Amino acid sequence: MILSFSASCNVEEVAASCDAVRFFQLYVYKRRDIAVNLVQRAEKSGYKAIVLTADTPRLGRREADIKNKLIVPQLKNLEGLMSTEVVSDKGSNLEAYANETMDPSLCWRDIAWLKSITNLPILIKGILTREDAIKAIEVGAAGIIVSNHGARQLDYTPATISVLEEVVQAVGRRVPVLLDGGVRRGTDVFKALALGAQAVLVGRPVIYGLAAKGEAGVRKVMQMLKDELELTMALAGCPSVEDISRSHVRTDRDRLQSML
Amino acid sequence: MILSFSASCNVEEVAASCDAVRFFQLYVYKRRDIAVNLVQRAEKSGYKAIVLTADTPRLGRREADIKNKLIVPQLKNLEGLMSTEVVSDKGSNLEAYANETMDPSLCWRDIAWLKSITNLPILIKGILTREDAIKAIEVGAAGIIVSNHGARQLDYTPATISVLEEVVQAVGRRVPVLLDGGVRRGTDVFKALALGAQAVLVGRPVIYGLAAKGEAGVRKVMQMLKDELELTMALAGCPSVEDISRSHVRTDRDRLQSML
Amino acid sequence: MILSFSASCNVEEVAASCDAVRFFQLYVYKRRDIAVNLVQRAEKSGYKAIVLTADTPRLGRREADIKNKLIVPQLKNLEGLMSTEVVSDKGSNLEAYANETMDPSLCWRDIAWLKSITNLPILIKGILTREDAIKAIEVGAAGIIVSNHGARQLDYTPATISVLEEVVQAVGRRVPVLLDGGVRRGTDVFKALALGAQAVLVGRPVIYGLAAKGEAGVRKVMQMLKDELELTMALAGCPSVEDISRSHVRTDRDRLQSML
Amino acid sequence: MILSFSASCNVEEVAASCDAVRFFQLYVYKRRDIAVNLVQRAEKSGYKAIVLTADTPRLGRREADIKNKLIVPQLKNLEGLMSTEVVSDKGSNLEAYANETMDPSLCWRDIAWLKSITNLPILIKGILTREDAIKAIEVGAAGIIVSNHGARQLDYTPATISVLEEVVQAVGRRVPVLLDGGVRRGTDVFKALALGAQAVLVGRPVIYGLAAKGEAGVRKVMQMLKDELELTMALAGCPSVEDISRSHVRTDRDRLQSML
Repeated sequence: MILSFSASCNVEEVAASCDAVRFFQLYVYKRRDIAVNLVQRAEKSGYKAIVLTADTPRLGRREADIKNKLIVPQLKNLEGLMSTEVVSDKGSNLEAYANETMDPSLCWRDIAWLKSITNLPILIKGILTREDAIKAIEVGAAGIIVSNHGARQLDYTPATISVLEEVVQAVGRRVPVLLDGGVRRGTDVFKALALGAQAVLVGRPVIYGLAAKGEAGVRKVMQMLKDELELTMALAGCPSVEDISRSHVRTDRDRLQSML
Repeated sequence: MILSFSASCNVEEVAASCDAVRFFQLYVYKRRDIAVNLVQRAEKSGYKAIVLTADTPRLGRREADIKNKLIVPQLKNLEGLMSTEVVSDKGSNLEAYANETMDPSLCWRDIAWLKSITNLPILIKGILTREDAIKAIEVGAAGIIVSNHGARQLDYTPATISVLEEVVQAVGRRVPVLLDGGVRRGTDVFKALALGAQAVLVGRPVIYGLAAKGEAGVRKVMQMLKDELELTMALAGCPSVEDISRSHVRTDRDRLQSML
Repeated sequence: MILSFSASCNVEEVAASCDAVRFFQLYVYKRRDIAVNLVQRAEKSGYKAIVLTADTPRLGRREADIKNKLIVPQLKNLEGLMSTEVVSDKGSNLEAYANETMDPSLCWRDIAWLKSITNLPILIKGILTREDAIKAIEVGAAGIIVSNHGARQLDYTPATISVLEEVVQAVGRRVPVLLDGGVRRGTDVFKALALGAQAVLVGRPVIYGLAAKGEAGVRKVMQMLKDELELTMALAGCPSVEDISRSHVRTDRDRLQSML
Repeated sequence: MILSFSASCNVEEVAASCDAVRFFQLYVYKRRDIAVNLVQRAEKSGYKAIVLTADTPRLGRREADIKNKLIVPQLKNLEGLMSTEVVSDKGSNLEAYANETMDPSLCWRDIAWLKSITNLPILIKGILTREDAIKAIEVGAAGIIVSNHGARQLDYTPATISVLEEVVQAVGRRVPVLLDGGVRRGTDVFKALALGAQAVLVGRPVIYGLAAKGEAGVRKVMQMLKDELELTMALAGCPSVEDISRSHVRTDRDRLQSML
């Protein structure tokens, strides 16, 4: 699992109550000491990798948040480090808070800095193009997460599944490629694996399960995804995950090529 | 006609009351003696072929059945052989029953076994790709039925009409290719024949006719399909079924090719 | 104008009250004497061409007519020749009447027969493909009308505008190509002319005008189409109809070609 | 800003109250003295260019105007020169007025005449094709505005964004290419700049802002567009407008090319 920077339990609490392989997701603030503090706490608490969100040097225009005047709670990971209560009476408080804290100068060079403060491998999250995938490997990313931030950052970003193959081909197995976004069914997982993702990350289904039935709901959602993936594999003739191959799915490109 | 494994009259009853050329559709259970029993009864009762459903080593996720808690009646063909009353209070009883009975290990090798227990020709139902069509011929299928099981097995399977030509070309007239799925009008039959199907199978329209008006409804539906096919042939300038040719329909591929 | 075989005024009445260039549209019945009678009356009454409807050897399945139990009135052109009152209490009386009267054996050879009974040029209406266009010229058609019979004959026939260019290219200016179907606006006329139609025929708009406001409504509809065509020409930079060229419209094919 | 010929304040009033770089948009009437008068007043009042609307030799068929019986007020720029009160009780008074006043003979040669009456550069507005762009440069246009007149002139004109690149390539940086039409968001501005527009013109959003909140509304709309453009640039990795490149957007053509 990947623990969010903004999670409602902190790095240490989650480590104490969870046996899973854990990664820690990092936003980089202007106050770089925050990143140093969190990365080192994650490393100390047995997290296995840092997931650097690279698509948020600034917060996207999230109109639902603006309309709903979204409030930011005190971030548990930042307790004692920084108050996260930025109150603005116009629009989204998250936006106001992000504008104050996020480091808009974040750039490729900062990966070197990040590597200098931790021994953990760095995965870069938010890659959507061949060019950025290559760049990410050049600066030393240990893995790439194809993500469009749930389509909440930049309007008109492509669906991740539609660019996955471009990234996979650019990477050429040098580092693992993961995908998030739009995964709601086992068939979605199957498609991403067939197109070359090493693993698939799930966000909203877990939250939906949590909202509906708490911990039991999360378990149910994860079990449903596993069952559906397993059934999809069986019906597609794949005894194991390794048997899921590029020929098990047909993309728009495949369709076009088959007609030429 | 193809008698379903799960029909509400058994092999012998249907043979006794029906002069049509009859095939028998077979599911393979873990209990292989069931298949032996049914195939031999079909052969003895004058059925002309076995139609092996190959796309159901496990039952698909049929959400309407789950929601409706579908109940399985005692299958007439299995009376005296196996009780089919599996009662589960959560979800689809058909699913529970199928999970218990169906043989998920069913594979290409089993065609040899099936051939060893009958002299009837074996048609394989559930082929959707060039690769599987070639494999089916290799293992000795006497015919291929392009089918996606009414789109109830694996979500995102293609429409059968869209893959028919791929299969027909792979088969190259070595064995007959039949199609089911989506046939509601005489124009649908015409299209499938034009794309190379030897014959077209009809499921739901017959059931709809039966539900609406019993035997008379079935006759009416079949007559409607025949009349519509005949009229389509007349208006397309085809005096006989043999005159229906590939040039009488235009596919997406034809359209693209005509623009290049 | 083209006078319909089934018009509510007969050949002579229309000739007496209309100065326009007139063509006569012909259905061929089993009783060939009907065609002889009508063609010769049309010729005698100063009609300039025979428009042979070639797409109706049998009547299409017109479900609205069936549902509405469409009644056929006494056809004015057939008064004294044939009663057209065929009463059937199930479905469309037009269908019952057509089944009785239309000659389903109508074929390319009959053009020679039709030419033998008249000196008028023969236009063939109902051509939708390159192949039929070439055949029509071979058997001596003086013109071709691209038509799908208002999409009421064979389900899934293409829109006429989508096949016009294929026919125009096959014909290669040997005979005029006309088009009907889907013309509702001056822009539709402009498109058909740009794609090579010599003229455009209008059916429903005239009927709509008639139904709404009688003769004045018909004049209004025709004036509207002319005004819209003229304005479209002005805004497209075409001072005369001859200036409307292939480059004034963009088809799906043009679009694809521009992207390759 | 571009002051409309039909604006509710005249050339001099706007010049007196606005420090922005100002262009003046011109319609050419049969009474050419009107154009002479207005162009010379614009030049004298410090306007920097004349924007000649070339797509309106006649007014398009604007059905909403016809239905609403749109009334033309006295045009402020024409006070003392011409009464603009043309009252017609059927349909759009704007149409009646335009039919009376607009010069339908306006053509490429008139650019020379326009250049003879002013020293200001002439931009031609209403170009949608490669051919017209080249012609515009030949006759001496100092700039091209890709516009379809808000899609109110000729039905079925393409969206401006869809033809921008064709025009940009034909022009080849000889003169600036601007675009209007469909710009509602900062992402729209970004796309047009990426496809080669030198600048983007905004019409309706300003009117909407004005209608909703007067001058403050206009400022708000313009600020919103600027903020959205700036955010889009940040999230696309473009520190300056010059960094927005062709590779930052993907068109249908790009998509097709990537699949071949």
